[in-house]
Amino acid sequence: MSKKITNRSENFSKWYNEIIINADLAENSGVRGCMVIKPYGFAIWEEMKKILDEMFKETGHVNAYFPMFIPKSFFSKEASHVDGFAKECAIVTHYRLKNDDSGNIIVDPDAKLEEELIVRPTSETIIWDTYRKWIKSYRDLPLLINQWANVVRWEMRPRLFLRTSEFLWQEGHTAHEHELQAVEEAKKILSIYKNFIETNLSVPVIEGLKTDREKFAGAVDTYCVEALMQDGKALQAGTSHFLGQNFAKAFDVKFANRNGKLDYVWASSWGVSTRLIGALVMTHSDDKGLVLPPKLAPYQVVFIPIYHNENEYQDIVASIKTIAQQLRNLNIRVKEDFRDTHKPGWKFSEYELKGVPIRIAMGPRDLDNKTVEVVRRDTLEKNIVSVDSLLDLIPKTLVKMQDDLLLKAKLYQEKNTFQVNDFDDFKAKINLGGFVFAHWDGTSETEDKIKKLTKATIRCVPMDSKEEKGHCVLTGKTSFRRVIFAKSY
Amino acid sequence: MSKKITNRSENFSKWYNEIIINADLAENSGVRGCMVIKPYGFAIWEEMKKILDEMFKETGHVNAYFPMFIPKSFFSKEASHVDGFAKECAIVTHYRLKNDDSGNIIVDPDAKLEEELIVRPTSETIIWDTYRKWIKSYRDLPLLINQWANVVRWEMRPRLFLRTSEFLWQEGHTAHEHELQAVEEAKKILSIYKNFIETNLSVPVIEGLKTDREKFAGAVDTYCVEALMQDGKALQAGTSHFLGQNFAKAFDVKFANRNGKLDYVWASSWGVSTRLIGALVMTHSDDKGLVLPPKLAPYQVVFIPIYHNENEYQDIVASIKTIAQQLRNLNIRVKEDFRDTHKPGWKFSEYELKGVPIRIAMGPRDLDNKTVEVVRRDTLEKNIVSVDSLLDLIPKTLVKMQDDLLLKAKLYQEKNTFQVNDFDDFKAKINLGGFVFAHWDGTSETEDKIKKLTKATIRCVPMDSKEEKGHCVLTGKTSFRRVIFAKSY
Repeated sequence: MSKKITNRSENFSKWYNEIIINADLAENSGVRGCMVIKPYGFAIWEEMKKILDEMFKETGHVNAYFPMFIPKSFFSKEASHVDGFAKECAIVTHYRLKNDDSGNIIVDPDAKLEEELIVRPTSETIIWDTYRKWIKSYRDLPLLINQWANVVRWEMRPRLFLRTSEFLWQEGHTAHEHELQAVEEAKKILSIYKNFIETNLSVPVIEGLKTDREKFAGAVDTYCVEALMQDGKALQAGTSHFLGQNFAKAFDVKFANRNGKLDYVWASSWGVSTRLIGALVMTHSDDKGLVLPPKLAPYQVVFIPIYHNENEYQDIVASIKTIAQQLRNLNIRVKEDFRDTHKPGWKFSEYELKGVPIRIAMGPRDLDNKTVEVVRRDTLEKNIVSVDSLLDLIPKTLVKMQDDLLLKAKLYQEKNTFQVNDFDDFKAKINLGGFVFAHWDGTSETEDKIKKLTKATIRCVPMDSKEEKGHCVLTGKTSFRRVIFAKSY
Repeated sequence: MSKKITNRSENFSKWYNEIIINADLAENSGVRGCMVIKPYGFAIWEEMKKILDEMFKETGHVNAYFPMFIPKSFFSKEASHVDGFAKECAIVTHYRLKNDDSGNIIVDPDAKLEEELIVRPTSETIIWDTYRKWIKSYRDLPLLINQWANVVRWEMRPRLFLRTSEFLWQEGHTAHEHELQAVEEAKKILSIYKNFIETNLSVPVIEGLKTDREKFAGAVDTYCVEALMQDGKALQAGTSHFLGQNFAKAFDVKFANRNGKLDYVWASSWGVSTRLIGALVMTHSDDKGLVLPPKLAPYQVVFIPIYHNENEYQDIVASIKTIAQQLRNLNIRVKEDFRDTHKPGWKFSEYELKGVPIRIAMGPRDLDNKTVEVVRRDTLEKNIVSVDSLLDLIPKTLVKMQDDLLLKAKLYQEKNTFQVNDFDDFKAKINLGGFVFAHWDGTSETEDKIKKLTKATIRCVPMDSKEEKGHCVLTGKTSFRRVIFAKSY
């Protein structure tokens, strides 16, 4: 039998972990807080990367690579930035090991670095130190650069994909002539993120602005896309920052503007990470395992033969191979599982667990009737269909499933989005889980108090929120706009 | 005027550095020994990565990601491995910064790691610690995994692309049932490397086996591909290792074989890095700048308009845009430089410096005659050709240039390959530069002596070398095969 996993309703966090492990996405490593991304999980990330990289390039961005080590002095130049990251840094202090007198391998005390190096938690500082050399005039702007890299933020309570000490991400760092251009870039990227996530992960997200308490350390404004998980908790899926001239000032990056005067450069930065895989899992998967949106599934279709003897096996395998090749010709990612070491039933459970969008089984009777059994992973709906219809049916079903997953997740989000006007109701809805739209008086003090009382934070001020006069749910002070509260990852 | 670079004959090493810097491939960063790979240089690496990744996947390999931190105890488990890398490791000892009493940012002494973490110089140890959990039976084999990653080997004398403390690479790590399968894998990858490098970089390489002195720390056998640079020095372009059961034993990775008995797993590992960009530069470039093989050039064709007034400018630009789009439709990477801030002559030098394979200029007379001027970067040959012929000519010229570059490099290699039989001649030829085929008595002692006397090392025992009785060039002892000596990077 395949592995049985915990039900979501029983223990969501255990369920999540078991999905990740049993579907072979990732596992904990021998290094505290760091995960191994297994081939099946990494294939999902590769596909995300490919699509997103293309979207960046189509909008004029290019890739580059900056050192992963940041001298402590660079790191300290932007005050709020270092405050934000100081408590979670991996620090390189030495550059050599040696044998001690008893033959043990030790850190060589003679190889201490003059200045400690921080393993990048994000690269603003090293990049703006470089941009100083690249930007002299308005002609050098805009600079639209992205980097795919590993970063480290030390985690005391790591969780696979959601919070790991090392993770993979992309980080864009752009430089502009005018303030408005940098703001527009940050917003443009936010809409790319929303589009990318909804179209490919089938995860609906809300675009918004972070409060001062929640914004990136060093940003003027942080924009974000927020998603709602099946346990009613919010997950920040991506962020895009308008950095103002903060880093330009910290690293003295000035340019000659069109009037020939020196001015500081305006900046944005933005990123999404392997955390998106966590978002995908927690949005769609069920008690039988992973459910993958077709666009990101390493295999979109799996074929499983059902047979009683060698003759049947040969005929069915030959027939499957023909169909599989025809589907591959349509650019569908197909897997054939012809292993004779496992029974069909075991394979069915296995591919349900791994979230393969469509399973196609063919048995001896199917061979005679020129039919196959097609099962969609999300609905588990079974259909016996003619082989001839597959080339039409499969691409359509993949598109339909992609859309249905988004629709289902949107309905879930709508059903779990509440407007509240008093604090008792607020607490009740927060405990229930979901996005809670409420008035807030705009102070960090109230934000902190609400967090202390309910564990809810302000996820964002939604971009499309309308002006509406009301009273802060805690203090009763006047407010002009609702913000979204939720418990979060 | 565009930047003038040093001649190769004057100072090869200075020439190399100026090419890298002035062609915008990379630059030194504020972090000692670490480089910034600029967008133009990174685009070359991206193209290499794309092609090589496809070759790996076509031969059954999949990608994954392993932590970049390796606990010191893992690192120490394979004795010769740690010996080989101990002297060039970046070591993480702390995980937090804090403010001291005077408000300075310091490493928090209370946040010292119980066990130090080594930033991976290569990942055999962390990967084989993981494989122990993945491999139980012969059914789990072979395991054919690759990873694209950054690694760190501390460099005291860094050189852009050739030796940097941090560099980018791919590292394959495979596990097999039988010894022979692991050897065959190592050899298969070597031939993929040779094929990849010759076809795409147009750099001819010799396949061979490293001597014990030169092999990878932890390998039974190291295979390599060696290239010859324009200054007569050899460059190791890639290596592939047969690891025997060394890492399986160090990490206790056993599997139930087909007879139901436990056995240690057989292994290979292999890698190429951003160093390949250095190989490419030093093989083809000339005193005018970079020469890029078309397959890896970020832009294969650049269009430059020549005009005296706004009317001419508009007409020529319109005409170029049409042709450029037609070429793009043929999957040719095209750049149009319509900037009016620089003169055509400046642009010509600029794109020569940047190694764009084909430059196409169009002036007012060309517009009338429906012609353009086409210049090939490697030969600097100029031709006035009809616009109508371009769609046929350009793809053909790109293929021809790719082949010609390889041919030219092969002729250079042949011309600078010598067979020598006595030590005086040996010294003379080594000083001249080039591959020197000589007999060697097979001892590390002799190898060391020759290195001390001449600075030459044994690059490899060529795979296709014939048995030939002779006498060691230093000791006169009997030898059965010539090996390749050279000075090297």
